[in-house]
Amino acid sequence: MEISARNVFKGKIENVEVDAVMANIHIKIESPQLVTAIITKESVDKLDLKKGDSVSAIIKSTEVMVAK
Amino acid sequence: MEISARNVFKGKIENVEVDAVMANIHIKIESPQLVTAIITKESVDKLDLKKGDSVSAIIKSTEVMVAK
Amino acid sequence: MEISARNVFKGKIENVEVDAVMANIHIKIESPQLVTAIITKESVDKLDLKKGDSVSAIIKSTEVMVAK
Amino acid sequence: MEISARNVFKGKIENVEVDAVMANIHIKIESPQLVTAIITKESVDKLDLKKGDSVSAIIKSTEVMVAK
Amino acid sequence: MEISARNVFKGKIENVEVDAVMANIHIKIESPQLVTAIITKESVDKLDLKKGDSVSAIIKSTEVMVAK
Amino acid sequence: MEISARNVFKGKIENVEVDAVMANIHIKIESPQLVTAIITKESVDKLDLKKGDSVSAIIKSTEVMVAK
Repeated sequence: MEISARNVFKGKIENVEVDAVMANIHIKIESPQLVTAIITKESVDKLDLKKGDSVSAIIKSTEVMVAK
Repeated sequence: MEISARNVFKGKIENVEVDAVMANIHIKIESPQLVTAIITKESVDKLDLKKGDSVSAIIKSTEVMVAK
Repeated sequence: MEISARNVFKGKIENVEVDAVMANIHIKIESPQLVTAIITKESVDKLDLKKGDSVSAIIKSTEVMVAK
Repeated sequence: MEISARNVFKGKIENVEVDAVMANIHIKIESPQLVTAIITKESVDKLDLKKGDSVSAIIKSTEVMVAK
Repeated sequence: MEISARNVFKGKIENVEVDAVMANIHIKIESPQLVTAIITKESVDKLDLKKGDSVSAIIKSTEVMVAK
Repeated sequence: MEISARNVFKGKIENVEVDAVMANIHIKIESPQLVTAIITKESVDKLDLKKGDSVSAIIKSTEVMVAK
């Protein structure tokens, strides 16, 4: 399966903080670069996300802004 | 000015492709990592974005998905 | 690969309209339900998307609104 | 009132899970298709969303990705 | 119909610029405040959007960032 | 630093409600106009956001819908 999202960063989960509905995931994509993802607790459970997992951070390009 | 978006990646613009309304910007954040941003032509003009510019790619953490 | 996006709808591409930077894809997920996706021309080319292809429409749950 | 969002799916709420700030809503749009929406608790209260309500799930087409 | 999006601004369309797939709409919500919306050409045609129309700009609260 | 997001509204924080992972921020941009932003608790802490702060609400134009 290939996805239309143009931005796929491979990395490792550094931290998972789970609340009742939402979760905050820190993914280290390349030391010391860190990506923060806010996803549902449902997804954390379904994918069994935990510290040290090899994952990809995926971002649709229409969501990226540019600052100069 | 500091922004609430948790993901800010510094890099250089590698390519700018401008259409009548939208534009596709490729930002090299760390060789060979590339971020694709779809922004308005208005912003490209306003910020005068061009190849070689030092910019930041900014992404709100609620827009990041995780795949495993 | 499993993705954290909670909404994945399988369907067939009914129409692909490509502009210089963006593309509009119509996906029939279940007659007569139709999903419209705006993605980059880059993705259309990379995934070779064309009418009749079996694809999935993927939507992060934070992007879904509810009206009543 | 008509909205520019191209994706409007009518369905019934199957589950409402409310946290202090966010809420997770499951909407059955056509058996067994299920849409997950993450919205604010504020909206759940304002629209008085509860299991069995007839609602629409609304998604802007720029938020839809395609996988093949 | 009420929508879960928490941000609804009434205003008048000041400019419509249409491309093959996407369109850029400027909405004056209160002089001199201006909202820019990027929506599909499909929606512009379907809602028959033109300069001077009274419309609402609608934004899901998870899409709003804060800078200080 | 200038950002590609076309919608920047200056205002004052009227309310901050913080949960374990997410936070709901009300920003009064012009009486009685109110913008609701859902951001991470991390950002609330990092920017030290509190009632009465002068802030900007920032919204990428691809996230704005139009209703008529």
